[in-house]
Amino acid sequence: MLTLAAARLCGYEGDHHIKLAAAVEFIHTATLLHDDVVDQSKLRRGRPTANIVWGNSASVLVGDFLFSRSFQLMVEAESVEILGILANASAVIAEGEVMQLSSIGNLETSESLYLQVVAAKTAALFEAAAKVGAVAARRSAGEVAAMAAYGLKLGIAFQLVDDALDYSGRQAAMGKDVGDDFREGKVTLPAILAFARAGEEEKSFWRRTISDVRQSEGDLSHAIALVERSHAITDTLARARRYAEEAKAALDDLPDNAYAQALLGLADFCIARAY
Amino acid sequence: MLTLAAARLCGYEGDHHIKLAAAVEFIHTATLLHDDVVDQSKLRRGRPTANIVWGNSASVLVGDFLFSRSFQLMVEAESVEILGILANASAVIAEGEVMQLSSIGNLETSESLYLQVVAAKTAALFEAAAKVGAVAARRSAGEVAAMAAYGLKLGIAFQLVDDALDYSGRQAAMGKDVGDDFREGKVTLPAILAFARAGEEEKSFWRRTISDVRQSEGDLSHAIALVERSHAITDTLARARRYAEEAKAALDDLPDNAYAQALLGLADFCIARAY
Repeated sequence: MLTLAAARLCGYEGDHHIKLAAAVEFIHTATLLHDDVVDQSKLRRGRPTANIVWGNSASVLVGDFLFSRSFQLMVEAESVEILGILANASAVIAEGEVMQLSSIGNLETSESLYLQVVAAKTAALFEAAAKVGAVAARRSAGEVAAMAAYGLKLGIAFQLVDDALDYSGRQAAMGKDVGDDFREGKVTLPAILAFARAGEEEKSFWRRTISDVRQSEGDLSHAIALVERSHAITDTLARARRYAEEAKAALDDLPDNAYAQALLGLADFCIARAY
Repeated sequence: MLTLAAARLCGYEGDHHIKLAAAVEFIHTATLLHDDVVDQSKLRRGRPTANIVWGNSASVLVGDFLFSRSFQLMVEAESVEILGILANASAVIAEGEVMQLSSIGNLETSESLYLQVVAAKTAALFEAAAKVGAVAARRSAGEVAAMAAYGLKLGIAFQLVDDALDYSGRQAAMGKDVGDDFREGKVTLPAILAFARAGEEEKSFWRRTISDVRQSEGDLSHAIALVERSHAITDTLARARRYAEEAKAALDDLPDNAYAQALLGLADFCIARAY
């Protein structure tokens, strides 16, 4: 949808953007299939993951197939520049996943390293999706960069909100799944901030549950309470809001039309879902 | 090496073929990393597999990274046609692996389905590697097709020999690893032929060991004996020899130079390693 909207916002009138959008979606789906194998996830969007239903082998191979198909679609769209953008994004995503894997359990992960991981594993594809639309429309380098900046900032805002919601007591009270990152020992900004602001006793709680992944009944509720008490959620969401504002500002130098309004609204929605 | 030799055989004088050869090698390595996860393999070329040393997660992600890098290299070589050839090959390889996965344990797999799997999972990359060299050299459609046919036939011959060697009593006597396919319940041509030629008692042996993968001490030796007694190895190698001859014949309409001689020698070597 980002690629479609970005292309139309930029005045593109052909139909290659449909194949390019499908290519982005295939890359996204391939990374989700592989991520669920890597994280041994059992649920995605509340339903059993492909690796649970069909096994790791099928998930790896179907991911590879979708990945190859996405490049076939790009070849059909006949733009080497766009192929380059999406090949780069794919490489950056894989690097981001490796960075995340190697920072698992490390509560000393800096906020800047965390943001690098988020930019790579999540926001790089948002960035490429938006950029590809502007490139298809043959916009100037400055306008292409503005579309790319919109995507990148939006992607970071999206992931920050996602990471905040995973520690949200309100979400838990509404019956939504929370605590995935906690259970997997993934170090996200709420945990980084809560740990940095914790006393010695709380620090050893975090070390046991996140670094050693030794968890028992009640630990998640306690973690949620610590995160809220230390204002880590509020601060994570404040950062998300700043990125969403920067995303919207990036659109200033592009045409203002119905598509631009949709993308502005998307940035607002991305934040609003946290409240 | 196939890409480098094919390009030079066809008179290519630039240096883009080096990036293209690296792209082929990266795709190959990515598929090996993912295959070992899919097959839960513990050894490759006599050494512990990456999934054993670094885990499934690293193997999946590094495979994805190499795959992305291979497309970045192709973008640098600036040929949409070559990108298309390798994107197609990658999709076919993934399809071949899925076909192989879904035929595991099925002793009724036809020889023609087996050859389709081999053409897809193994020979498609040989084919693309050779074809890309001819395309880089801007050869005529007929010559490009001849190079591609060489690669395809060579790849099939290579895999047939590989599958024969996995049931070879002589290899076992020389201390080489044999029986990987047998232990994984992979249905290869030696087993297909031996099963088709077996009496009822032997058929139930194959069903227990391959379809149900219930194996005990001595079963592999018995399987090797059955395969040899039914001439399944001899016949598999005869087919491999035929494909190698067809590979060599495909080079008839291309220039005869040192590179052509090397590729002819490669087809012979591919067969010779079985004796």
